[in-house]
Amino acid sequence: MALIVQKYGGTSVGTVERIEAVAKKIKARRDAGDAVVVVVSAMSGETNRLVELAKAVQDRPDPREFDVLVSTGEQITIALLSMALKEIGCPACSYTGSQVHILTDNAHNKARIKEVDGARVRADLNQGKVVVVAGFQGVDEHGNITTLGRGGSDTTAVALAAALSADECQIYTDVDGVYTTDPRVVPEARRLEQITFEEMLEMASLGSKVLQIRAVELAGKFNVPLRVLSSFEEGEGTLISIEDDSMEQALISGIAFNRDEAKLTILGVPDQPGIANQILGPVADANIEVDMIVQNIAEDTTTDFTFTIHRNDYAHALEIMQKTSAALGAREVSGDDKIVKVSLVGVGMRSHAGIASTMFSTLAQEGINIRMISTSEIKISVVMDEKYLELAVRALHSAFDLEES
Amino acid sequence: MALIVQKYGGTSVGTVERIEAVAKKIKARRDAGDAVVVVVSAMSGETNRLVELAKAVQDRPDPREFDVLVSTGEQITIALLSMALKEIGCPACSYTGSQVHILTDNAHNKARIKEVDGARVRADLNQGKVVVVAGFQGVDEHGNITTLGRGGSDTTAVALAAALSADECQIYTDVDGVYTTDPRVVPEARRLEQITFEEMLEMASLGSKVLQIRAVELAGKFNVPLRVLSSFEEGEGTLISIEDDSMEQALISGIAFNRDEAKLTILGVPDQPGIANQILGPVADANIEVDMIVQNIAEDTTTDFTFTIHRNDYAHALEIMQKTSAALGAREVSGDDKIVKVSLVGVGMRSHAGIASTMFSTLAQEGINIRMISTSEIKISVVMDEKYLELAVRALHSAFDLEES
Repeated sequence: MALIVQKYGGTSVGTVERIEAVAKKIKARRDAGDAVVVVVSAMSGETNRLVELAKAVQDRPDPREFDVLVSTGEQITIALLSMALKEIGCPACSYTGSQVHILTDNAHNKARIKEVDGARVRADLNQGKVVVVAGFQGVDEHGNITTLGRGGSDTTAVALAAALSADECQIYTDVDGVYTTDPRVVPEARRLEQITFEEMLEMASLGSKVLQIRAVELAGKFNVPLRVLSSFEEGEGTLISIEDDSMEQALISGIAFNRDEAKLTILGVPDQPGIANQILGPVADANIEVDMIVQNIAEDTTTDFTFTIHRNDYAHALEIMQKTSAALGAREVSGDDKIVKVSLVGVGMRSHAGIASTMFSTLAQEGINIRMISTSEIKISVVMDEKYLELAVRALHSAFDLEES
Repeated sequence: MALIVQKYGGTSVGTVERIEAVAKKIKARRDAGDAVVVVVSAMSGETNRLVELAKAVQDRPDPREFDVLVSTGEQITIALLSMALKEIGCPACSYTGSQVHILTDNAHNKARIKEVDGARVRADLNQGKVVVVAGFQGVDEHGNITTLGRGGSDTTAVALAAALSADECQIYTDVDGVYTTDPRVVPEARRLEQITFEEMLEMASLGSKVLQIRAVELAGKFNVPLRVLSSFEEGEGTLISIEDDSMEQALISGIAFNRDEAKLTILGVPDQPGIANQILGPVADANIEVDMIVQNIAEDTTTDFTFTIHRNDYAHALEIMQKTSAALGAREVSGDDKIVKVSLVGVGMRSHAGIASTMFSTLAQEGINIRMISTSEIKISVVMDEKYLELAVRALHSAFDLEES
């Protein structure tokens, strides 16, 4: 008998029919002898409905009251799913985040879980019940309802799995696993059987939005085996876990990419200590997130400084940079909001040389000009004109034999 | 400075615009120096939406999970109203039934309040905040969410008012008070300034559905002055309180009526001890509520036994009576589902003779045949053919000078 925590997202529980289908899946697991805890999101559309109500009342809704409001979304799902389970003869009991004491800090709308008290859940599991818990929400030490921010249901599932020492945390979603790259770009893309937490973090943050980054981090921290599966199809999905021997052969796990990038360069800026902060400080103050940062080698006393941001922030960041440029006496500001980022991800990189050169030569053969390069221990990212995206991803997928298992 | 508990029903908070209007009303009260606690229902339509979701999953929804589900309706309103209050500069804080510890028994869907802990509410009031509480819901001693049954928000307001020793509990609704009778039947019907708890109970149970009976009972028990007012118009409404000197002149407070009545008579039933129970037992077992019961004087060894029920239960009750009649060896069963009940209500009846005879002669003058009569200390009810309803109510309203203050 295993203890499994399953999480079903908004699409998986988007209608009464889908909730009933999920109930059948859960019952099958329990009938097979496993103890099952289920974490659910709000039915798709419900959170948006609530957010719109809030915004109709306040342009910037009060954070505490916003949490009181949106947390009802998951509460509706836990009740309906528990009913659906009972209807097919599977004992079940629902709990809000507050009832099962998912203790968080008091940062409303983006709270972090501090502690999960598994006692009530364990008592129900011992009675043979399926325990259905509202994702995305918790309670602070004063009994105020908090939410973990959008998509936080994955985090709830992992935190519960960690607190209960579950054997596996299964995230049911609308894809059947993590792929070597986006199958819409490379039809030969292959589902990965297994991937490490680190690789998944790089894949997720680079645009393969299957799992919430925080959930993967948390799972890695507590070593909770995480599995991504489809709600709608049978299959083994992808297991995300710590690195083990069986993974050693894999050089590259996947190719992530991000279409919505823009870059800004400030040219001929004085090369002096503190310059990076003088350039990026005002950007951070405007709540614009910076991704890659590249500073070229100094020519004489000036240097060129380039960074990438989300395309939506381009106009705002450009305006800020023009002010900064004037203040710093830089030569000029240039920018491009038609760029993309393509990244190779794989723990195998650590112990294998030549990955970067294979990547660069592959791109060169296709006539693709690399505009920026950035590397970490387990990934290499390159920036290029957006028109090359598909070509680059397909060429790399083939060059690293990712279509083969 | 007074401590006021206000309750706004589903229609009063049915849209964002109405919630904003309610917020203004509340703020005006607070700005005038009063401490204000507000109890709200779900936005109109929301509870029905949730009930339909539940019924799509289970024909008879699990009671515990049903409460988890429908309690979200009020939770949405408390958040939105608190936001609306803050938006106009009025400090406010929302609480679910569970958070403010409205302790109930564990009778899901129809729980009764056992205790209200006013400490958290008082602390907020002392800080100058308006406290917004979800009506209709509570929590049992194990932390399970309970609901008081439909319309229970009035009860929440009264229980809170009692726990806080509030000066007044104001029930805002879509009518501007309690009337001498339904103004749709008698255009001259007059709003009552004041009425006793007892009279209100008779009026409510007889079909003037302004307030929930349980709320009136509770207010009477704890002597909480209760005021019914309109959410949409200015005005003093109707104050419901204990009997006082100023009320002494009023002979009759109002005329209540109920259109949805049916009656059943079992004729020639043996006149022996226990016969009432033999007749009404099977009716009660079928969950059919019996209203008036009249047993005529025995002729020889048999008697006639008549009772009234809701019209919707007529067919079912008739079927039961036919079986009972056969079992008891009664002569026959007759029935009528086209009857109505009209009642005079007033504490003045206690000390004034002649009310009944005025009533009967008024009806006789209009040619209205009385089919049944039943009396209590402060009301006289008569049953008649439904075609006479409007005529009877108008004639009685005029005969007792109810249009005059």
